[in-house]
Amino acid sequence: MNYPIVVDVTLRAGIADPEGATIERALPALGFDGVAHVRTGKTFRFDVEALDEASAIEVAHALAERLLSNPVIERAVARLEG
Amino acid sequence: MNYPIVVDVTLRAGIADPEGATIERALPALGFDGVAHVRTGKTFRFDVEALDEASAIEVAHALAERLLSNPVIERAVARLEG
Repeated sequence: MNYPIVVDVTLRAGIADPEGATIERALPALGFDGVAHVRTGKTFRFDVEALDEASAIEVAHALAERLLSNPVIERAVARLEG
Repeated sequence: MNYPIVVDVTLRAGIADPEGATIERALPALGFDGVAHVRTGKTFRFDVEALDEASAIEVAHALAERLLSNPVIERAVARLEG
């Protein structure tokens, strides 16, 4: 069966996020007050052909660690979409 | 009150995703068979100071459309984190 997966990749706490910092600096000039702590991340959506949900998540997790994220600075969480 | 928001930015259907295509091409050589339809996206997490949840989502949605995404090729969804 095909399982739709989402992998959410975020920077670990303490790792600098220059893109988020730049967005945060731009906000007051655009009229967005009261927005703080901007952190960016990446998502990967794909279908995994597997026997059951647990195996699909396992494949997605291995893929996330090996190819989709840098485990030194990023945290990857794989879950079923929806 | 401070509301933790996630904005999920994905490419609209039909828009080419070269990063996803490259990942997909690399998968068989890495031993990941049965993974297909890889699509990439971006997330933005931030706190919004607002009177209630609905106002916070509204601010996040405006921000997502104006600054965090390109509405021509991308779709942005703002939701409360968690």
